[in-house]
Formats: sequence, structure tokens, C-alpha cells
Amino acid sequence: MQYLLKPCALLLLLLTVFSAYSTTTQLTATQKLVVPKNIIYVIGDGMGPAYTSAYRYFNDDPSTKMVEQTIFDKLLVGMSSTYPDDDTYVTDSAAAATALATSHKTYNGAIAVTKEQQPLTTLLEQAKAAGKTTAVIVTSQINHATPASFLAHNEHRRNYDEIADSYLTNLINGQPVADIMLGGGKRYFIRDDTDLTHGFIEHGYQYIDDIDQLNQLTRIPALGLFADKGLAPALGSKHPTRLMTMTDKALQLVSSRKQPFVMMVEASQIDWCGHSNDISCAMAEMDDLAKTVRLIKAYIDTHPDTLLVMTADHSTGGLSLGRAGTYQWQGQALKQVTMMPNDIAQKMLRSEQPLVFWQQTTQLPLTKEQKLQLTETIMTAKAQKRPQKYLTKALKHLIDTATYTGWTTSGHDAVDVQVFAYGKGYEAFIGHQDNTGIAATIMQMIDQ
Amino acid sequence: MQYLLKPCALLLLLLTVFSAYSTTTQLTATQKLVVPKNIIYVIGDGMGPAYTSAYRYFNDDPSTKMVEQTIFDKLLVGMSSTYPDDDTYVTDSAAAATALATSHKTYNGAIAVTKEQQPLTTLLEQAKAAGKTTAVIVTSQINHATPASFLAHNEHRRNYDEIADSYLTNLINGQPVADIMLGGGKRYFIRDDTDLTHGFIEHGYQYIDDIDQLNQLTRIPALGLFADKGLAPALGSKHPTRLMTMTDKALQLVSSRKQPFVMMVEASQIDWCGHSNDISCAMAEMDDLAKTVRLIKAYIDTHPDTLLVMTADHSTGGLSLGRAGTYQWQGQALKQVTMMPNDIAQKMLRSEQPLVFWQQTTQLPLTKEQKLQLTETIMTAKAQKRPQKYLTKALKHLIDTATYTGWTTSGHDAVDVQVFAYGKGYEAFIGHQDNTGIAATIMQMIDQ
Repeated sequence: MQYLLKPCALLLLLLTVFSAYSTTTQLTATQKLVVPKNIIYVIGDGMGPAYTSAYRYFNDDPSTKMVEQTIFDKLLVGMSSTYPDDDTYVTDSAAAATALATSHKTYNGAIAVTKEQQPLTTLLEQAKAAGKTTAVIVTSQINHATPASFLAHNEHRRNYDEIADSYLTNLINGQPVADIMLGGGKRYFIRDDTDLTHGFIEHGYQYIDDIDQLNQLTRIPALGLFADKGLAPALGSKHPTRLMTMTDKALQLVSSRKQPFVMMVEASQIDWCGHSNDISCAMAEMDDLAKTVRLIKAYIDTHPDTLLVMTADHSTGGLSLGRAGTYQWQGQALKQVTMMPNDIAQKMLRSEQPLVFWQQTTQLPLTKEQKLQLTETIMTAKAQKRPQKYLTKALKHLIDTATYTGWTTSGHDAVDVQVFAYGKGYEAFIGHQDNTGIAATIMQMIDQ
Repeated sequence: MQYLLKPCALLLLLLTVFSAYSTTTQLTATQKLVVPKNIIYVIGDGMGPAYTSAYRYFNDDPSTKMVEQTIFDKLLVGMSSTYPDDDTYVTDSAAAATALATSHKTYNGAIAVTKEQQPLTTLLEQAKAAGKTTAVIVTSQINHATPASFLAHNEHRRNYDEIADSYLTNLINGQPVADIMLGGGKRYFIRDDTDLTHGFIEHGYQYIDDIDQLNQLTRIPALGLFADKGLAPALGSKHPTRLMTMTDKALQLVSSRKQPFVMMVEASQIDWCGHSNDISCAMAEMDDLAKTVRLIKAYIDTHPDTLLVMTADHSTGGLSLGRAGTYQWQGQALKQVTMMPNDIAQKMLRSEQPLVFWQQTTQLPLTKEQKLQLTETIMTAKAQKRPQKYLTKALKHLIDTATYTGWTTSGHDAVDVQVFAYGKGYEAFIGHQDNTGIAATIMQMIDQ
């Protein structure tokens, strides 16, 4: 009996050691890697910590005492550093996407190449080579920095035509890297010198060019290009949740195939709103992303062999909730802003009652002084070379003042970004990690 | 034999279930609460995510390719929301500290009282009532908003004298709430109308008033007041790591007693640097905190029944790493700034060669144009009512420009803050939580 109990005692000992370990030591990405069948990798471009906090307060139901948790709150597991491979510490979207796609640091501007411009294997290339279904869903053009860093190799993100071309020449087992591509970018794929969509059709892709035709996509591979460059902004769009709609379609397509899949989904335009210091624009993009992630979470709840990992490539704009000494942020007011400030400006410049139009489209009250100032600004704008740009800036300033929103830059911020994970294998992402570490863990999972 | 193996099989089954559970479900604060004997609760006042990111890059060794991880990176487990119980969403330090000390939201300004000004039990009161040793170590005055919210109840944080008085009237089993108090605040304790230190001595406290006398503290209870208000700033101080020094002493004292303890340690002045938009000041305070946390981690490594939980009450200043469109942050340059900008300004105003003095104390190069501008600014400053204040502002602007540091406010920011944890029970703090949730978990641990 003494001997018979020994294995059990050993097991008990192991269990004790394991328990003690798990309660006194931080988990690291390499411990006990649980490998999911499917991976959905979501990137909120430019979505630093202030954006998810802002979205919570923007979205707060004022009739309840508590502030409601968002989907971001429910899935938060850690944070990530984003510095590029130079001495700036502030990354651009290309270097960050390369890190997130290949697990290697590179220079700002690089698309999945090293500092010496040698190609770096991306995790979608790796997944495709391993026979998994691959997908890229974005609201930018599909050859923009982030998706390009998963699908192509180029010395500079601005070589849009070259990058588009390479989607048909950078082949894995004779096929393009991504089985599903949904986003914008028609002007780079259908040009005077070529029509790349023909090449995709020759590779067996179904091709559509209207997001309203999504139901016409019935099988993999598939290509959808829904705008010349990026898709229309969520705010004021007839498709305010186009990222969710595209992701839903992609999930239907990959599910029907029943093969393991790796999907990259990017809320590309949070960053664009950040660059133009436009908080109402940003909240609308965050809303599309939040609904997309809720959809993905629901998918995982019925497909528990799937992992969601979400992060941002960097934060944009130096956004703060509170400005100029005031202890307030009134982001809920942004719910009433129904058009992009840029479009409001355009219409105000043509309107005979611009202040009434402002009131109707934003519901933001103006003081007597602000009314006088705005009337004057409209007059001044009309005398400018670019009246719309001039007025847009003034309107964004009005919105920032009304909501107490602060910005420090039209560029990026080196603040760490958050990491969210859910589903099978999520615990590998708990804690702090570098952006290259996120990719390394995913690549390790794909490898197995 | 069949029966003999059964417990082992059951154990295996349990192990399997436990593993499956831990790999597919997010941990929540209430699951399998592991209860530590001792709790060290660290608060970085004002330390939003940009501060820990900044500290990493400030601290980077330029001779290595990788950026070194900081102690904050090693201990990160989640984030926390900080909104107060009103419609501002931006908390002050009192409401935030009340949430962190009592697990209840309240109004800005409140010291551990409800909106109806009813007292809320603090976790140090709870710990003291449970017979544990209690300690408060801060770099502010010990009756400042954060420590006060653990030790007192007052309708407003500005009632400094009342709060100090209450440290001798708010008693648990006849004794003050904290067995050890180290920090500043002499002017509130030794006043024309009273000398509260006598009251503490009557309660058996050893009292010292000089941080250099710390070794004279030989037993608990103990009180140390080392400055009229807050301690001297870390930057340029002869005690740049005074938080670490005080914490080290407190750990020695509690260890010698061998009773369970709950200790609150606050890096109070990160917030003050943030309010004055002073990045060199902030990095020096972060450095003291980092060294303090390394000390605590080392303590836990030899006392594994101890838990460290660290968070911030809010972020201050709308700090960004990068400004005005430039993709850079050069925080390493701050390592050469050896005095507070305020002190540099004072000395420059008295110096015959102020630009040489600037160069010597900061090592920050000035362009020809900046030299001319600075010379002019000094002249203008001398004609002002408050020349030092005027010049300090200009010097901070020079430092921000050189390092590409951005700020949006002299107040607070509603961005979420990070949560760090280490040691026994740390996993209860993984993920997103509200600041009240952190306190609720700690109070649950103290209760057991």
C-alpha cells in the first residue's frame, strides 16, 4: 500500500507545487501554452488607454448610478509596450504592425522587413503555410500599413501600388496570403495600368465592390473592396458598424469551411480620428469596434476552441479626458453629435442658418459669446483658401471645450497600450508584454 | 487496489477540471480567493499609464538594443477605473483614495465619508480592529488626502488641522488607526494651539522629526514627521529615495513584531509633479517609487505570505510621450537634469551666467535661437511680480520641447490607471476592475 499510494502522493505534491507557484509567481507567456484551434487577432489602430476609458464614459447610461462596464473592461488582461527599433521610442503604424505580425522590431515605415530590408515571415503567412484559413478585415484600404504588414514586405508603407501588386506575387503554396480580404482600397487595385481584382478572380476569389453585396460572398477565397481608399468614417455613415458587418460575414465564411483559421481584424480609423484630434469621430469608431468584439466574444462562446487577442499598435493624439485644469469629462454629450465635424463644417458653410444647423447636428449648446465667436469664425473661414478645413478645426475645438477633451499632438504617443484576450489560451497574454511578445506567442500557437 | 486508486483518480479528475477551468475562463476577484498574511498596498498618486511608460524609456540603457523592463512591467496585472460618485468622471485624490481605502465611491473632496457625510470604515481601521499591525508611509504630509482617507473621516480634504486632530480621536481599541506613520506634516501636528505629537507619545509612540534619525525608531508604535508639509521633492534632494528608506524601516519594524500587517505606502508627489507639468520632477518621483517597489518585491521573495497590490488613484496632467506632431520621446535626457526647474530658475535669476548654470544643471543643449530667447525670458522674468514662477514655466517648456513631452491640463485625467500585484493572492487583481473593487478584495482578505 505504501507503494500504491506513492503516485498519488507525488500527484498531490505536484498539485501543491503547482498551486503555490500559480499563486505566488506571475504567469509568463511561455508557461503551459494552451493552443487554440482558431485565432482572431484584433487591432484597434491608435487605441491607447484613454480611448477605452473614454468609450466607457461616452457609453455610460446616465439613468443608473454605476458606470456600465464595456466589452473592453470584460476582456482586459494586460498591457504592451510599442517602441520601434530606433531611438525615437514612438512607433508608427508600420513598425508596430510589423512587430505585431512578425514578432520583430523594425524601423518606422517598414512593412514586414528588417532594418536591412529583409522580409520577415508574418503570422498570416505562417498560418497559410500551415494549411489554415486566413482572413484580413479592415476599415482602411487593405494595403494600408497594418494589413500590409501581415500580407506583404516592403521598405515603405507609402508604396501603396507596390504593396497591392505584391498581394498577387507574395504567394504561399501558389495562393495569396489571405483567403478573405475585406476593406477599402479600390484605387490601388483597379488602376489605369492594371486591374488586380482579375488576378484574384483567376486565383478563384469571389470579388465584390459594395458592402451591401456581402451576402453574395458564399465561399472562400473572397475579396471585397468597398471604397477607393478607407471606408467612410463610422460617424454619420449609413454603415456605422461596417467593421462588425464585415467580421460577421468573415466568421460565417470561415465557419462553413470547418478548417482552423487565423483572422486579423483592424479598427483602422480610430487612429485617423486621433490624428485629426476628433473625439466624436473616435467614439463612433470605438463603438463599431466594441460591437465587433461583442460579436467575436459571442462567436467564441459557441466555439470555445477559438482565441481572441486584441491590442492597439500605439496611442494617437495624446488624448486626455479632462483639459485645462477642469476636473470633468463630458463625453456623453458626443452621443448627440451625428455627423463628422468635417461634414458639419461643409454644410454650415453652405447654410443660411449655420448655427441652427450646428445645434441640430450636435445638440451642443453655445453660450452667447460662443455664438458670436462662431459667427465670426464662419466669416473668417469663408475668406480662407480652405474654408472647410478652417471651420472644421474651430468646430472640433468647440466640441473639445464642451466635453473637456485634451490633445497634445497630431502624431503618436509612446504610452503603453492595453492587451485584451478571451477564449482558449487567453491566459498567455496576462500581464505586461512587448508588442513582439504578443506576436511570438501567437506564432508559437500557430506552430503547434 | 481498485479502491485504493480511487482517491488518486478523483484527484486527477479535479486537477483536470481545475486546469480546464483556469484556461478557458477569465479569473474574477471572487474566485478562489487566496488570503495573504500581510498586505502592502502601494499608491502612486497621479501615476497614469503614461508615467510608467515614460519611466521605462527614461530608464533605458542606451548601450543595449532592447529596452529594459521596469519593476512596473514585471508586476502589471490589470487596470482600474477611477470615476467618482458624481457626473464629472474625473476624480480628485480624496474621492479616489476613499474608494481605494473603503471600497465606496464618494464625492470629490471627501475623506472616507459618504455623500451624506457618514463615515465609511477604512481597510486600515478594519485591519487594526482585527489585531493586525498597521502602517502608513507617504511623501506628502500624513494628513494629506490619500493617507487621510485611510485614517480619518472628514467632509473635506482641506480641513488639514481637523484631520490631524482626528488621528488622536479616531481610535480603534483605544489606539490610533496606524501603528506606524512616516511622512511629512509637522505644521499640522505641532501648532500654536496644540502639539499632537505629545498625544501620540502618550499612546506609546516613539516620535522622531528627522529622516536621518530613522534608526532611532526601534519599536512599534512609531511616528515620524520629516517636513512641515510634504517631504522635499526627490529631484535634487539629499534623500532622493526617501520613500524607499521609510518603507525599508517600516518593513523592519513590522517584521520584528511578527504579527500580520497591512501597510499603505504612497508615492504622493508624482501627482504634484503632474499638476505642475514637470516631467523631470515626475521621473525622479517614479524612480523613488520603482526602488521602493523593488525593495517590497525582495521582501516578498523572502516572506511569500505577503501580498503587494499597487495602483494609482488617477492620472495627472494629461501627460503624453510625443508632442506637436513629432514621433519621438527623449526622456533619457532627463537623467541629466539634477535639480527641480523651480530651483534652477531661482539660481539662474541670481547667477551672472545663467545660461552656463542651465547647461551645468541640465546638460540640455540650447540652440542659438533658444539661447537668445532664454536670455530675453530671464530679463522679462526679472520685471515680473513673481520672477521665479515666470522663469520656471519657461524652463519646463524648454525641457518639454527638448524631450517632446506633452501635457493638456494642470488637473486630472479620467484615463484608467494600472494595477500591479505580486505575492500571495496576486491573481485576484488580474484584469479590469473599478477602484472600489481593489479595496473590496483587500477588505475581503483582511476579513479572513
